[in-house]
Amino acid sequence: MSVPSETATQTISYSDLVALLAQIFQRHGTSAEVARVLAENCASAERDGAHSHGIFRIPGYVSTLASGWVDGKAIPRVEDVASGFVRVDAANGFAQPALAAARALLLEKARSAGIAVLAIRNSHHFAALWPDVEPFAYQGLVALSVVNSMTCVVPHGAERPLFGTNPIAFAAPRAGGDPIVFDLATSAMAHGDVQIAAREGRSLPPGIGVDRAGQPTCDPKAILDGGALLPFGGHKGSALSMMVELLAAALTGGNFSFEFDWSKHPGAKTPWTGQLIIVIDPAKSAGQDFAERARTLVEQMQGVGLQRLPGDRRHQQRAESLRDGIVLAGHDLQQLRDLAAQ
Amino acid sequence: MSVPSETATQTISYSDLVALLAQIFQRHGTSAEVARVLAENCASAERDGAHSHGIFRIPGYVSTLASGWVDGKAIPRVEDVASGFVRVDAANGFAQPALAAARALLLEKARSAGIAVLAIRNSHHFAALWPDVEPFAYQGLVALSVVNSMTCVVPHGAERPLFGTNPIAFAAPRAGGDPIVFDLATSAMAHGDVQIAAREGRSLPPGIGVDRAGQPTCDPKAILDGGALLPFGGHKGSALSMMVELLAAALTGGNFSFEFDWSKHPGAKTPWTGQLIIVIDPAKSAGQDFAERARTLVEQMQGVGLQRLPGDRRHQQRAESLRDGIVLAGHDLQQLRDLAAQ
Repeated sequence: MSVPSETATQTISYSDLVALLAQIFQRHGTSAEVARVLAENCASAERDGAHSHGIFRIPGYVSTLASGWVDGKAIPRVEDVASGFVRVDAANGFAQPALAAARALLLEKARSAGIAVLAIRNSHHFAALWPDVEPFAYQGLVALSVVNSMTCVVPHGAERPLFGTNPIAFAAPRAGGDPIVFDLATSAMAHGDVQIAAREGRSLPPGIGVDRAGQPTCDPKAILDGGALLPFGGHKGSALSMMVELLAAALTGGNFSFEFDWSKHPGAKTPWTGQLIIVIDPAKSAGQDFAERARTLVEQMQGVGLQRLPGDRRHQQRAESLRDGIVLAGHDLQQLRDLAAQ
Repeated sequence: MSVPSETATQTISYSDLVALLAQIFQRHGTSAEVARVLAENCASAERDGAHSHGIFRIPGYVSTLASGWVDGKAIPRVEDVASGFVRVDAANGFAQPALAAARALLLEKARSAGIAVLAIRNSHHFAALWPDVEPFAYQGLVALSVVNSMTCVVPHGAERPLFGTNPIAFAAPRAGGDPIVFDLATSAMAHGDVQIAAREGRSLPPGIGVDRAGQPTCDPKAILDGGALLPFGGHKGSALSMMVELLAAALTGGNFSFEFDWSKHPGAKTPWTGQLIIVIDPAKSAGQDFAERARTLVEQMQGVGLQRLPGDRRHQQRAESLRDGIVLAGHDLQQLRDLAAQ
């Protein structure tokens, strides 16, 4: 799968893409519920122009399901631990169905306690992180999530990789506009973007990664072939990546990025780790309405010359996709149809 | 005040430094309780080698108190809002006494609800942030705090400054060792470190800041004299700085970094904003003991060649200071004594 380029393109509606992807997931071993959740997630990323987490991921999902590494029919077990704490054992399934199963309880706790945390363990996260937090912002809540992944990032000051790309995602409501949402890998580049660069034969800027000898490289293939990524922002990004390991793995009861061994499952692609989501109800805060305050901040950011907010590009692309349909390379759409029929 | 250098030095014990600083604070307009809290905070930073937040800050504290900008005798008002939410109106006083006043309630809620948040508003934070979170880690809890400050950072992609240095601090317990603690400005450099470089006539590395014309500069004086800092790590650090504004100001009911106007208080130095602290009880998580898991992560980080953990240098310096006393430049110690006697 590739980003639409000079090849012939075709257009598909969001709902048709969801249906097609759900068919693929179910055909390749997930339950109907898991297929629905993953299809919406993946189609949303494609719809929003987040190509590295859109249909580009489908072959990886199919491969990991075929390998027996992840349970596509897992039924998450939700535990109500305390007035602000929900735990989910994803039962070796995907993280998104675990979040879906716990969402109502998490929301109820956040509104009642003012803050609540969801600790997902024994889970596989192979998607963008912003779709997990953005819905809370549409419900007037502030959400923060972290997920660890698989060893591919050299801690700042170390010699060999240990951390995952370990993203941090944040969403907050904003009056008179789309929520403020960001999703940033604590690595210098997201793994999917390195894969896309390798596929397209593009060089990377300096500072992204090292080759298998630990030497700096701008070749994405050298990073993927035994090399590793660097954290963004030197020791600060590295500290944040370490924090993600502690919150997403140690605090949930999940695996660190370096702990799982998928060597007996050739074709496995999904990190088997954990995820943490913190949701805060700003209605409990003092003073003015939070969403109005967020609007004020955004106006001031624009006032000092900021052209584009985090998340703006996604929201613009989303509006276009919902109006005109999602544009895919013809051969990619055909590949999806083949996978659905296989 | 300066970092001990080739000038004659003198040694003072931690407790004597706390007593001396408390005398200064009280002499210059704080209550005994506020003096105690600020003196311990400032002496701790000096003890741990965090010079930019140690006695270097005392003239600023004295100046801001004399200006009438901050109320050194403010009595924080603690509000119990929900099972996981505590609010404090710092009443135009310092943030640290507000945290001290709410700490017991915050701890109780974190242990009961599994997670709790403290939203401090109407507060002045002029200190390092790690002393606010580290004590929770010694009590077995995980803590995260953000505080916004004053306009001096240009958002990535903008033309003029808007954000503060907006640090993020994190602390987590670790079995068999000191807690894992970091405190990072989301600016490319902490403001105090720029001030110290200016005082010592040192150049800065590229990428730290811009001059008053918005042009890149390595001169710390040009950054302080109408110029501005840049965020660390490009758009990612900038997104995190924006998040800090939203959490520390919008969510608490405090001022954004660009909102307060101290022009009628010549000598004012302290940002009048807000602070958020999230505390999580890892005893509510599943699986193994969190502190043991943190130990495992640290061992693995050392195993891939990491020489020094975040916070290690502070803990080493602390041990030395507690054993041998805190080394100060003789003229700095004399200046402190003069301020205490004035």
